[in-house]
Order: sequence, then structure tokens, then C-alpha cells
Amino acid sequence: MLYHVRMDVNIPHDLDPEVRADTVAREKAYSQELQRSGKWPHIWRIVGEYSNYSIFDVADHDELHMILSGLPLFAYMDISVTPLATHPSDINAG
Amino acid sequence: MLYHVRMDVNIPHDLDPEVRADTVAREKAYSQELQRSGKWPHIWRIVGEYSNYSIFDVADHDELHMILSGLPLFAYMDISVTPLATHPSDINAG
Amino acid sequence: MLYHVRMDVNIPHDLDPEVRADTVAREKAYSQELQRSGKWPHIWRIVGEYSNYSIFDVADHDELHMILSGLPLFAYMDISVTPLATHPSDINAG
Amino acid sequence: MLYHVRMDVNIPHDLDPEVRADTVAREKAYSQELQRSGKWPHIWRIVGEYSNYSIFDVADHDELHMILSGLPLFAYMDISVTPLATHPSDINAG
Amino acid sequence: MLYHVRMDVNIPHDLDPEVRADTVAREKAYSQELQRSGKWPHIWRIVGEYSNYSIFDVADHDELHMILSGLPLFAYMDISVTPLATHPSDINAG
Amino acid sequence: MLYHVRMDVNIPHDLDPEVRADTVAREKAYSQELQRSGKWPHIWRIVGEYSNYSIFDVADHDELHMILSGLPLFAYMDISVTPLATHPSDINAG
Amino acid sequence: MLYHVRMDVNIPHDLDPEVRADTVAREKAYSQELQRSGKWPHIWRIVGEYSNYSIFDVADHDELHMILSGLPLFAYMDISVTPLATHPSDINAG
Amino acid sequence: MLYHVRMDVNIPHDLDPEVRADTVAREKAYSQELQRSGKWPHIWRIVGEYSNYSIFDVADHDELHMILSGLPLFAYMDISVTPLATHPSDINAG
Amino acid sequence: MLYHVRMDVNIPHDLDPEVRADTVAREKAYSQELQRSGKWPHIWRIVGEYSNYSIFDVADHDELHMILSGLPLFAYMDISVTPLATHPSDINAG
Amino acid sequence: MLYHVRMDVNIPHDLDPEVRADTVAREKAYSQELQRSGKWPHIWRIVGEYSNYSIFDVADHDELHMILSGLPLFAYMDISVTPLATHPSDINAG
Repeated sequence: MLYHVRMDVNIPHDLDPEVRADTVAREKAYSQELQRSGKWPHIWRIVGEYSNYSIFDVADHDELHMILSGLPLFAYMDISVTPLATHPSDINAG
Repeated sequence: MLYHVRMDVNIPHDLDPEVRADTVAREKAYSQELQRSGKWPHIWRIVGEYSNYSIFDVADHDELHMILSGLPLFAYMDISVTPLATHPSDINAG
Repeated sequence: MLYHVRMDVNIPHDLDPEVRADTVAREKAYSQELQRSGKWPHIWRIVGEYSNYSIFDVADHDELHMILSGLPLFAYMDISVTPLATHPSDINAG
Repeated sequence: MLYHVRMDVNIPHDLDPEVRADTVAREKAYSQELQRSGKWPHIWRIVGEYSNYSIFDVADHDELHMILSGLPLFAYMDISVTPLATHPSDINAG
Repeated sequence: MLYHVRMDVNIPHDLDPEVRADTVAREKAYSQELQRSGKWPHIWRIVGEYSNYSIFDVADHDELHMILSGLPLFAYMDISVTPLATHPSDINAG
Repeated sequence: MLYHVRMDVNIPHDLDPEVRADTVAREKAYSQELQRSGKWPHIWRIVGEYSNYSIFDVADHDELHMILSGLPLFAYMDISVTPLATHPSDINAG
Repeated sequence: MLYHVRMDVNIPHDLDPEVRADTVAREKAYSQELQRSGKWPHIWRIVGEYSNYSIFDVADHDELHMILSGLPLFAYMDISVTPLATHPSDINAG
Repeated sequence: MLYHVRMDVNIPHDLDPEVRADTVAREKAYSQELQRSGKWPHIWRIVGEYSNYSIFDVADHDELHMILSGLPLFAYMDISVTPLATHPSDINAG
Repeated sequence: MLYHVRMDVNIPHDLDPEVRADTVAREKAYSQELQRSGKWPHIWRIVGEYSNYSIFDVADHDELHMILSGLPLFAYMDISVTPLATHPSDINAG
Repeated sequence: MLYHVRMDVNIPHDLDPEVRADTVAREKAYSQELQRSGKWPHIWRIVGEYSNYSIFDVADHDELHMILSGLPLFAYMDISVTPLATHPSDINAG
């Protein structure tokens, strides 16, 4: 099932620079592993913001929450999730 | 270039039913032609709403505005456009 | 899967009273059939508003959208959907 | 009487990790005791957020405020409460 | 139990003047009967607006919703309800 | 003259606990003295929030501002003030 | 006592042009009479909007509400009122 | 002096098509005359919306309000005006 | 030219008390000097808030920005500026 | 292609004054170099705020994001980007 997700990142200015760099690096690895698995098929940067729009393709709500709450940057993010249904005009719809 | 677009449709309740049906049918044809051309690669229904999230892939701002303002339902829509850049974690990025 | 849904009803003041009464009656029957099927396990009135909070338990996003867009009052409603995951403190969670 | 409650948790990043772990553990125990008593019949995680939707079933406003203000995480929460009435379409209504 | 209620009245400009006058008159009578019964102990006009803040003192949520949804102007109102608990600094609290 | 006031309290998490306890105690005494004087006839706790709705009955705007800005918790509060007029349906109105 | 008032005018597009012209003319006369009386000492047009910021100087809340609700355009306005106190830096303050 | 202006156009769906076409044509002529005079140096379409961002260069507030309120589409627009000062990093600043 | 300005002051709780007192004293002196010069003809306290509504009468946008950005409390303020035009109903208008 | 950008700067009060001064100086140099290159043709100060409206003229979304995320003050800014199309009334349009 598909979900539309917006993530806005707000890392505190006083976070230790090494902790910050390590967390950002782990975030990237975590995201890329999920992209390779097919569960995170799209991620786009919102121009001018430390934010992204993403599409997730997972089995159910619990799996999505487990993935999102496991993001290394989760504690510093505002996340909003929108469930997506097939659009009747979609040429790829059955 | 990629753009994220949200469209919310609000057709007036007193619109003539035939005009309405005709406009919705033309909207579908218009959308599917653009999907086939590759300019409108994704369209998803937002669950529970007469709304969609879409991704457009067009040459520039003027082409996107020409496409959106030509939507048969344009007069009844609220549209918001967000330009998308490549995300540094995207495994498909160069 | 569980979804939290808020519905706000705004029937136009100039709607024909018979159409209105018929639509509201069909809405009630439609809702009760879904409640009996187990797909709409909870519906509560928000005090002082022509609105409800509901819980739906359906197979996937497409089924939920089909149900919601089929509501006889759908054209007169604002609907917002929130996917629900198991809470780690829930005593009924596995 | 039934109340719909949304809780959004924002624990300060610089809270002592032990204090944090202890508070979260006490929150869970506190919640589960109330669930077992029947006063907190539903708790759901909002997907992607450190938030929940809950239903409380208590005697009156004062009891609900006593319960909510006694939450170990209360100081770090935004809470909004909505009183719920019986919905006329509810098949379980008298 | 006490509830804080805000009511904002928006009567459509094209409502028949006699219907309007009759509805407003019935609203006043309805309100005053409830004031005399003790269920609607306070009603104040918000300066400059066709709105009021009110305090209701009723048995439970269902009674309040029955009262509010029975207001002759209900169809033309936006209403928001807030449950009130005893304040620990209230000199009249037990 | 009557004023409707909403107060939302946000005490910083890192405030010295003794300062906090002392300030809260002084706030209570200050409020109760004003209640006894008749200038603060109503104070209600908003269920689930560290907030109150209050009614003040004072001579003029300057007196109200002097009272509110003198609250021991003033620096930690968001306050919004609404002037109240007599409602034409009020059974106690002249 | 001084009040800060913002008025936003929204006259329905289908209002009879003569009714409109007559109402606007009466509004102007009503306003100018109050300006001459000293009760409406300032009125400024907000650039680009059919709106104004005004200062009223009246005896009390009831007088202000009587004045505002008597505006010929009252039914077509959104009005918000803010009570003003003496500023401690005001060189004209006692 | 420079002003930043956003205009959002909402023409009622039931406006007579000839009136609409005539008004839009007069709007274009009015705008172009002001552009040629140097008072309206920039006008950009907001992609996907019936809206524009514009820059005006006029003598004072009264002139800007006279220009904006004289727009043939003024009755159907929401307009917001922001005064602009010289930016200290502007390479064209004195 | 006239401008309507709202200022909301938020001094950080951990600011050194002497710095705070000194800054507030300089703010008062700065404001009063501008009031005496005629450039800041009105300043009113918003009841219950650490905020003011002010009217400025200056030569142009640059002068206003220079004045506002020079306020000793500028770094701790949210400021919003609205340009004011002559109102057609103003009895003092030419 | 043209983009409308709003930047709001919020530098933390406890930032080291030398770091702050250095960052602001680098911001100015960075901006002026881009202005000279023609990629940042307009920058205006919003009166009364530590904010600007800017127009960028760059090749594509990725270039704009690279420029904006490279701003020395980027970590302390809220930025919102709007793509601009040619306006049909623009006298300079083809």
C-alpha cells in the first residue's frame, strides 16, 4: 500500500557536531537500504527547505510506523502521513 | 524538471449535471493524455477527499502553468505547486 | 487495518428539503450496514457540531476510499483520514 | 461519558536520558492501569508521529482532568479534548 | 457539569426576512427557557460580532448536544465546545 | 465591565523547581485575593490543558491590564482578552 | 476607553446595486456622525483591501457593541475588537 | 517607493460570461497601461494559481490604494500589500 | 505617510536581568524620543499582552525600517507593518 | 527560470557574537556574488522584519536548492519558494 509522507527536519543548533554528522550519515544509510528494498520508492527534496516528500510502499500501517519511528533523525522531524488510493484517471490502474 | 502538485476539487453543487459530467470526462481524458506523454508520471487519490497528489515532469514553469490552467476542472480547483530537487540520499541520483 | 476519520457535514441551505431528507436517510442506512459488517466499528457525534469521529477497520486504502466516496452525503462533507498503528502501551497489543 | 483525546508528545532533547526512560516507563504503566480499569478503553498510535488518539470513559470532567494532568509525560504534551455524544446512526445506541 | 461554548452566527443574506425574524425570535425564547431552568447560566455577547460565549450546566454530553442541536439557529451556527473542570485556585471549589 | 480571558501557561522545563513552586503558590494567592474582591468572578480549568478560561469584572482596560501583567506567572503565559457586552437574550439584562 | 477595531467588508456580488449604493452611503454618514461626536477618532484604509483599522473612544463595551452592530454594513463585515490600555512609554500618559 | 503585492482572483462561477470576458480584458489593458508608466514594474503568474506577485513603484500609500481599488477585477480579488525597503546586501543600493 | 505596526515582545527567560532592564529602559527612551519628534504619534498597550499597536508617520519605507530595526528590543520582537491610506469616510480627509 | 523566494532569519540569541558577525558577513558576500552573476536579480527587505523577498533566475530546481542550502545563514532561516510563470498581461512577455 502507498503512503505520501512529508518530513521536515529541525536539528537543534546546539547538537554536538559529531553526533549530528553521525546521525545524518546513519539516516542516509537507513533510507538507502529501504529504497533498495522497494519500500521507499520515491524521495524528493523540497527546494529551499530541509524537508522531503516521499512515497512509501509497505504492507500496513504498523510497518510504516516502525520504519518512520526508526529513522535516525526521527526525534528531530515533523512527519505527516497521507494514505493514497488508486486514482480513477490513473492509466496504470487495473 | 519535477514538481509536486496537490489539487483539491470543489465543484459547485448547483452546476448543471450534464456540464459536470462532461467536464469530469474531459478532465479524465486530458489527464490520461498527459500521463501517456510522460509529463504527468504519477497521480494518487488522497483517501477520503476529492483531491490528488501528482508529480509532473515538464520542461519549465511556463509549461506546467499551461498544463494546469488548461485542466477542464481548473476553475473549480485549489492547486498548490512545490518544485522538487534531487534528494542527496536518493539511490537513483547521479 | 484501522483508520481514524473525521467527517464534517455542510449541507447547503437551499438544498431541496425532500432531497435532503432522503439523502440523510440513505446516509444512515449506509452507515448502519457498514457498522453491522464490522468495517465501521465506532461512530461518535462531536458535541455541538454536525460532525463525527469514526474508526474504520478495512482491508486497505482503496476499500476505505470506496466506502467514504460512496457516502450519500460525501459531496457535502469535509473528511480527514489518519492511519492508526498499534500503540506500544495498548494492553490488547500482541 | 466518552471523550476523544489527542496527545502530542514533545520531550526536550536535553532531558537527562535516565529521567526520560523512567518517565516513559511510568507513563506506560500509568496508561495500562487505566486501560485495565476500563477508563481508557482505546489508545492508537498516529502513524509517523509521537502522538496518540485515545478514548476515555470516565465519570465527569474533573475525573478526566485528574487523569490527564497526572500523566507522567503531561508536562511534555499538548492535549486536546473533545466530548463525544451518541451518534444517531450508531447501531449500538439505545 | 460545566461546558464553555462559543457560538458564531452566520445567517445567509438571502434567507427570507420573515423566516429570519421568526427563527431569531424562537432562538431567544429557546435560550431564555434554558436560562430559567439553570442549564444555561451565562450568555455574553462578543463585542462587535454576531457571536456569544456561553456556559452550560447539564447532566452529560448527550444532553448538551440535544440542547445545542435543537437551537433554532443551529443550521447557521459554528459552535465549539470545551469541557470545564474545577480550577485548583477557585475559591468556591470544595 | 466584563472581559473573557483565556490564559495558557508554559513554564520552561529548566526553571528552578523552587522558583517554580514559589511562583505557582504566589499565583494562587494573587488569584484568590482578586476572586474575593469580586474582580475575578469566574475561573475554570480547561480539561487536559494547563490553561483556564476566566471572567473579569473591572472598572476599565487599564485596571485589567494592571491585574493581568501583575500575575506571578505572566511571563510564562499566553493571554487573550475579549470584551463582553450584554446579550439581548440574557434574562438578567435590564 | 479606547478600542482598536479592524473591519473587513464583503458585500455579496449579487446584492442589488441600488441597495448596495444606498447602504454604502448610509455607512459613510453613520461613520462621519460618530467621528464628529468624538467616539470614532481614527479611521484608516488598509492599502489594497476593502478594510479599515479604526480607534473608538466610548464609555463601555455595551456602547461599542451598539455602535458596531448598528453599522449599515454590519451584516457584511468581519469585525475584530481589541481593548487598548495606556502604554507605559506613551509620552502623553499621566 | 516599492511595494510587494499578491493578488488572488476568485471570479464567481455564475458571473455572466460576457461581463467576465469584458472585465478580464479591461483588467489587462489597465495593468499594461500602468506597466508602461513605470508604476507596475513587475508582474509574475504564480504557477498553478489564478494569482500573481507584483511589484509597484508609486509615490505613496494613497496612490497605491487608488491604483489597486481601481482594478476592474478588484471586487473579485484578495490582495495583500507589503512595503519594501532597501536591502543592505543589495548591490544596487546606494 | 502613515503605517500601522503591531509589535509582540518575547524576551528570553534566561536573559541576564541587568541586560534586560537596561534594554527595556533604552527601548522606552528610544520610543519617547520618536514620539516627541512626531514620527511615532500613537502607541497603545494591547490588554493582557506584552504587545503594542502603534502608528508611525515617516517619510518612506526606508525610514520606517531604520527606526524599527533600531529598536533596542528589535531582536526579541515580532513586528508586522501595514501601510495606511486615507479612508474616504474620514472627516479630516481633504 | 524565475522563482519567488521569501527568507525569514532567526538567529539564536545565544549564538557566539563573533560567529554571528562572521556568518552575517559571509551571507552578504555570498548574496552579492550571486547578484553580480545575474542569478539573484532582486532582493528587498520586508519592512520591520529580518526577512526578505527575492527573485532568483537560475537554470533549474537543483541549482536553486544548491544556492539556497549554501547560504551561510541557511540553518537559521525559514525559506519558501514559489515558481513563477510568465503573466499573460506582462508587457515584456513575448
